[in-house]
Amino acid sequence: MDILSKIDYSILKATTTDEEVLRAAEETKKYGFATLCVFPKHIKTARIVLPEEKVCSVVAFPLSTVPTQLKVAEAIFSAEEGAGELDVVVDVGAVKAWNWKKVEDELLEIRNNLPNKVLKLIMECCYLTEEEKTTLCKLAIETGWDFVKTSTGYGPYGAQISDVELLVKCSEGKIKVKAAGGIRDLPTAEKFIEIGAERIGTSSAVEIAKEMLHGREV
Amino acid sequence: MDILSKIDYSILKATTTDEEVLRAAEETKKYGFATLCVFPKHIKTARIVLPEEKVCSVVAFPLSTVPTQLKVAEAIFSAEEGAGELDVVVDVGAVKAWNWKKVEDELLEIRNNLPNKVLKLIMECCYLTEEEKTTLCKLAIETGWDFVKTSTGYGPYGAQISDVELLVKCSEGKIKVKAAGGIRDLPTAEKFIEIGAERIGTSSAVEIAKEMLHGREV
Amino acid sequence: MDILSKIDYSILKATTTDEEVLRAAEETKKYGFATLCVFPKHIKTARIVLPEEKVCSVVAFPLSTVPTQLKVAEAIFSAEEGAGELDVVVDVGAVKAWNWKKVEDELLEIRNNLPNKVLKLIMECCYLTEEEKTTLCKLAIETGWDFVKTSTGYGPYGAQISDVELLVKCSEGKIKVKAAGGIRDLPTAEKFIEIGAERIGTSSAVEIAKEMLHGREV
Amino acid sequence: MDILSKIDYSILKATTTDEEVLRAAEETKKYGFATLCVFPKHIKTARIVLPEEKVCSVVAFPLSTVPTQLKVAEAIFSAEEGAGELDVVVDVGAVKAWNWKKVEDELLEIRNNLPNKVLKLIMECCYLTEEEKTTLCKLAIETGWDFVKTSTGYGPYGAQISDVELLVKCSEGKIKVKAAGGIRDLPTAEKFIEIGAERIGTSSAVEIAKEMLHGREV
Repeated sequence: MDILSKIDYSILKATTTDEEVLRAAEETKKYGFATLCVFPKHIKTARIVLPEEKVCSVVAFPLSTVPTQLKVAEAIFSAEEGAGELDVVVDVGAVKAWNWKKVEDELLEIRNNLPNKVLKLIMECCYLTEEEKTTLCKLAIETGWDFVKTSTGYGPYGAQISDVELLVKCSEGKIKVKAAGGIRDLPTAEKFIEIGAERIGTSSAVEIAKEMLHGREV
Repeated sequence: MDILSKIDYSILKATTTDEEVLRAAEETKKYGFATLCVFPKHIKTARIVLPEEKVCSVVAFPLSTVPTQLKVAEAIFSAEEGAGELDVVVDVGAVKAWNWKKVEDELLEIRNNLPNKVLKLIMECCYLTEEEKTTLCKLAIETGWDFVKTSTGYGPYGAQISDVELLVKCSEGKIKVKAAGGIRDLPTAEKFIEIGAERIGTSSAVEIAKEMLHGREV
Repeated sequence: MDILSKIDYSILKATTTDEEVLRAAEETKKYGFATLCVFPKHIKTARIVLPEEKVCSVVAFPLSTVPTQLKVAEAIFSAEEGAGELDVVVDVGAVKAWNWKKVEDELLEIRNNLPNKVLKLIMECCYLTEEEKTTLCKLAIETGWDFVKTSTGYGPYGAQISDVELLVKCSEGKIKVKAAGGIRDLPTAEKFIEIGAERIGTSSAVEIAKEMLHGREV
Repeated sequence: MDILSKIDYSILKATTTDEEVLRAAEETKKYGFATLCVFPKHIKTARIVLPEEKVCSVVAFPLSTVPTQLKVAEAIFSAEEGAGELDVVVDVGAVKAWNWKKVEDELLEIRNNLPNKVLKLIMECCYLTEEEKTTLCKLAIETGWDFVKTSTGYGPYGAQISDVELLVKCSEGKIKVKAAGGIRDLPTAEKFIEIGAERIGTSSAVEIAKEMLHGREV
């Protein structure tokens, strides 16, 4: 199975430096990962090594603190800096308040402003009920997003098999699913791919690549 | 000691709803806290109850993912929405890379664009060495910021007495110090005030107020 | 697939009360879990509802603070109280020091003192290298243990697919594998069973059972 | 203020090795800490360097999984191995169930079996209400214990100023108070001493000692 080309290599710590981003970009190139997933402030650095389609950036990460207007501004900025994909955190507070109109309007607004970018909606499933997850997945489809993504990696827990299965089922083939958060090894990545995830987000991408190419070191 | 008027009541969870912000705003008014500290998307809601000087907002919170240009945009937006105070997360990655020129330029740029707002620099001390903390404190003074603040509350640990003492010493009376992160009770808040903090950030503000006014329930 | 009969339902919090144990024992009976996994102090309470073979207890949990002599005493006590299975935490410190003689002696001593009980060795894989995991698995086989178990649930992370695969491979059919830690849903439990785990440890056993019997609530 | 002689230097990780204990024992001697606080399995190693009165051990740590009988056995064992002080975790489950008789009987049983050892009761305050804390403090006094201690360091949070103040007040000079959990610097240690703690538990003892003797490195 071709796992490496489905991995978004995440380098998203508070302390991450440009030098670390540069090294991660080289590794992304070397191992053929789908993208390197960076903060907006690091897009330019990643682009020194990688083409646009290989650079993913996050928007309103990880707490979705800003309103639609600023999310759009951050997304447009990121596109201009040279990111080909954007992982945007949903307004979890609006979801918990069942303010679906607000959520839908935001998704539409971002989609309309970034018609040519790959857009992934980070749902932060750890905070949501089944009904909230399915409603959100439907809204993402209706508003033309490209992916739903399980988690930021900063919540109480990350990707769960049940969540990926639920999202794959809800997607009805109309939207792709990205599993992210707590994925540390090759077989877990493979499992998520097997059940229908088309992208894996992980900060352990290099370890997984080495495991794939050279076998596990024992 | 007048503690309550020195407290910034934080309501900064991924799941926070407008309704919770409204309730917290009423409590801020009732107990006379310094400010209610909210996400940019919640400023308008807080302003239904509170005047400008009682609303604080966070910028680039908690990971400082965006570059200067977007921090400025977020700060200006927050000011326009009606926040009187802004707690801005420093570019920790730039600090760890000792790229002081970049850090200083950013502080200056934000200060110049928000000349009339109370600006607090969140240093996220848990990631910094003593030398980085003191250098940062000096830069905050030189660029005319109003406060240095210890922590976001999202790092491995929050306010430490040693950090507040260090910042108070470095401040030489030219900048104020806000202690935040992990402060859960009245005597801890009092201790930080005693050693020189002029503001306390805490999500336990109401519990602390009740403890102050009615004594601890036993 | 018969999942429920392979689940050890864990109720192992600092605050767990006898009343909670009693309720969990009823659920264990109702859903047909393999065992209810409790603290030694709660075995008697669990035995009010469940027969010996349905009660599992933990030994030296979760930090393995005590030497062999006290582990044996705790295991014998637990057997006398009426536990049919015992999950014993390995001396992680001795493993990290590569003091294999000490580790082996301890496994042998416990095995010899409890010849008729099901013994599971909790390896706390999150702290171990591949080589340490495989060495430990071999020692568990050689000393006649019944299971190796991945995690306590109190370390930085729990069951990983790669660890279960590694242990299943190392086991060569001579020892069973229990996956535990961070397992929250039915498909994750199923996945671990599929790749060879013969037992699943989880505090979400009731949720998993309901998901299995009634489908996921949406 | 003589802080160092009031510090119990804790070395209590799952991965702690004998070699690390030996080094910590040397540091305990060098800096004149009150004791080195170790797991029962490490007492003998600590005693290579330190006299009985300088070695503290923990009992039923950190979850209090075992009943009275095994706590007594662990405490007697630890005394025989050469520990002069014993920090015993209370049966938090019994406290939460308000089974005060059970709690009191256990305290009495342990006290009676160890008449000549310094006994500290770890209350794990983070799980308790004010009333539970005060009741427990009274029971510790009535059963003749030497110290009440705030925390294990393994709960959601550690020593709080309000808890230490509460315990000091409840103690009425009849029992000493040990603050432990999350104490990382000299001024925090000093603060707890100032408000009445007679002992500080910390894994940062060496850093605190260096800060005291050489000043903070800037």
